[in-house]
Formats: sequence, C-alpha cells, structure tokens
Amino acid sequence: MSDVLNRLGELLEQRKQADPAASYVAKLYAKGMDSILKKVGEEAAETIIAGKGGNKDEIIYETADLWFHTLIMLAHAGLEPQDVLDELARREGLSGLVEKAQRKE
Amino acid sequence: MSDVLNRLGELLEQRKQADPAASYVAKLYAKGMDSILKKVGEEAAETIIAGKGGNKDEIIYETADLWFHTLIMLAHAGLEPQDVLDELARREGLSGLVEKAQRKE
Amino acid sequence: MSDVLNRLGELLEQRKQADPAASYVAKLYAKGMDSILKKVGEEAAETIIAGKGGNKDEIIYETADLWFHTLIMLAHAGLEPQDVLDELARREGLSGLVEKAQRKE
Amino acid sequence: MSDVLNRLGELLEQRKQADPAASYVAKLYAKGMDSILKKVGEEAAETIIAGKGGNKDEIIYETADLWFHTLIMLAHAGLEPQDVLDELARREGLSGLVEKAQRKE
Repeated sequence: MSDVLNRLGELLEQRKQADPAASYVAKLYAKGMDSILKKVGEEAAETIIAGKGGNKDEIIYETADLWFHTLIMLAHAGLEPQDVLDELARREGLSGLVEKAQRKE
Repeated sequence: MSDVLNRLGELLEQRKQADPAASYVAKLYAKGMDSILKKVGEEAAETIIAGKGGNKDEIIYETADLWFHTLIMLAHAGLEPQDVLDELARREGLSGLVEKAQRKE
Repeated sequence: MSDVLNRLGELLEQRKQADPAASYVAKLYAKGMDSILKKVGEEAAETIIAGKGGNKDEIIYETADLWFHTLIMLAHAGLEPQDVLDELARREGLSGLVEKAQRKE
Repeated sequence: MSDVLNRLGELLEQRKQADPAASYVAKLYAKGMDSILKKVGEEAAETIIAGKGGNKDEIIYETADLWFHTLIMLAHAGLEPQDVLDELARREGLSGLVEKAQRKE
C-alpha cells in the first residue's frame, strides 16, 4: 500500500469540496482538465530540465511536482493513485518489464 | 511504505547489472540520461493525450508508463522512489498543498 | 512569405496521397492525430534537452524536428503553415509581444 | 525568406536591451534558459491539448505560442530563426522527408 500516494489521493478527493479561492487544487479542478493537463506538461518539462541539470534535490523536487499533478489529473478523472499502482504491480507480476520491452521495441 | 514503487525501484536498481540486449531498462540506461528524459517527455505527452481523451483505462495505462519512466530516471540519477515519496510526505506534513498554493501563485 | 515553411506545407499536403509504407509522413498520417501529437511531445522534450545542453547544432536540429512535426500536425488538421505565420504577424502588428505579456501575466 | 519569423527574430534580438520590468520577453531572458525551456514545454503541452481537442483556431493559436517561445529560446542561445529554416531547407533539398524516415525508423 502506497501510504503517501493514497493519503494524497484522499486529500485530493476532499479538495473537490474546497473553495477554489482558498485552495490551489480546488482552483485547478475549477479550471478544468485542460488546465490540469497543461500543468502536467509544465511539470514534465521541469523534470526533464532537472534531470538534464543533474542536481539531485531538483530532480526529487520536480518529480514530486510531476507526480503530484498527475494525482490531481487522476482525481479529476475519477481515478485513484491505487489504480496506477495496481497497473504497475500487474506489469511487475507479469514480468512486466519484459512485457514492456516487447511491446515497445 | 509504497510497496509497488519501492519494489519497482529495487528491480530498476538490479537492472543496472543486466544485459542491454536483453532488457528494455538496461538498454535505456546504456543510452544514457538524454534518452531516458526523452522517454519521460514522450510518456508525458501520451498522458496528456489520454487525459484529454477521457478514457479511464488509457489514463491509467499512460500514467503508469510516465511514472515508470520517471522511476528509471531516478534510478539512473542514483535516487530512489522513496526520495520522491518523502518529499511528497514532507509537503503534506507542512500542509504542503497550502504551501504549494502559496509558492505557485 | 515563408518560403521554406510554405514549401514544406505543400510537400506535407502532397504526402497525404503517398503510400504509408513508403513515406514517414504518410505513415504518421495513417496512424492518426494521437501519434502525431505524441511525436510533437517527443520532439519538444528533445528540444528542451538540447536547449539545456547548450550545443547550438543540437538546438537547431531538434527545433527543426519540432517545427517539422507541428507542420505535420497542422496539415493533418487541415491547416497551413501560413495560418500560424499570419497569427504571429497579427500579434506583431498589434504590438503582439506587449499583448502577449499582458495576457500571460 | 521567412519574413514573419525573421522579423520576429530581429524583434527578439532587440528585446535583449529592453527592461525586464517592461517586456515579457526581456523578463524571460532575465530569468534564464531554464525558464524559457519551461515555457517551451508548457506551450508544447497546450499545442498537444489543442491538437487533441480539434478546434482549428486553438491549434493555430497554441502553435503560434509554441513557435514564438522556441524563437525566444533560439535568440537566447545566440541563434536565429533562419538557422532552423536553413536546416529544414537542407533536409528538403536532400529529399529530407525520406532521410527523416530512414533516420527514425
């Protein structure tokens, strides 16, 4: 069980009731999926820039931002972090990395 | 503890010893950080396309791909999934979503 | 008149009649918009990586790849390079950079 | 000669002398390459969202934004739009689309 991700998933679910004026997440929900996806793209770019830069703290920080905004996307789509963790576990169970290699190459 | 992510982190660590010809992940490691980051960008684009499309299965699938390739990036940079989970937990502990809102706005 | 972009636009229009087995562009058209957009995302990531790396030849090369794939996207959507150039000229005519600043900030 | 792109290239060159407080572009220059690349990633994401959405006006608008920010990146790197147009012309001259197909596949 991914405690942190699942707790964040619950928090993000609760934020659906929050005032958009008072909560960053509620504001993003109110703006809608396009705005959330734009943030996912922005944070992905920052992760790539950090990865290329090589500073470990920045990589951790930007990856956290990226994961966080994908969690918002999942919540907005009616999904939970566990859905993605289950998919990753399924792949792992199926020798998923091998499966991945065969699918992609 | 995020079992799935941490197990994947260990698997990805082990893959550093694998034959690039036999493992998708080992092949990516051998190509280097630029190739890994390119994949992160590609999977982010696919996540955005899936999010815009609205099909839940595709959103789960592409987000899993995106997280998976960020895990490869972390491993290549000498980092672990727990580093990112700790950062997310830290923010949560600091009422991180509020902090996030203040930082970004 | 942007000769190069407009010539490429015409070429990309002609490629709509080409055999997907014989032409990279025709193959991308056949795969559909999602595949084209995935390539736009991939080339954007490569442009960011090149920009961060600082090698001028790589920046030129990857930016050309990015522009090229946005041209394919435009053609697939029934648009021409000139449509985007007109939009850029319109902004410039309206002191567009100022407009841009006001819109974004 | 790509009049619009080259004129924009000259404008962006002039903006290097402008006051960051008065010009969106000068402000981006002052923030540095990482901030410019972040914007490139953000605009790429918006282009992908627009492409997936299918609204022609939005596709034109977001592609213009994306090209515009790649022009800022080029200027910041000491490059000109013509450098990229020359690369595209070179490929075209070399039956570049065929070359592209062979390189990528």
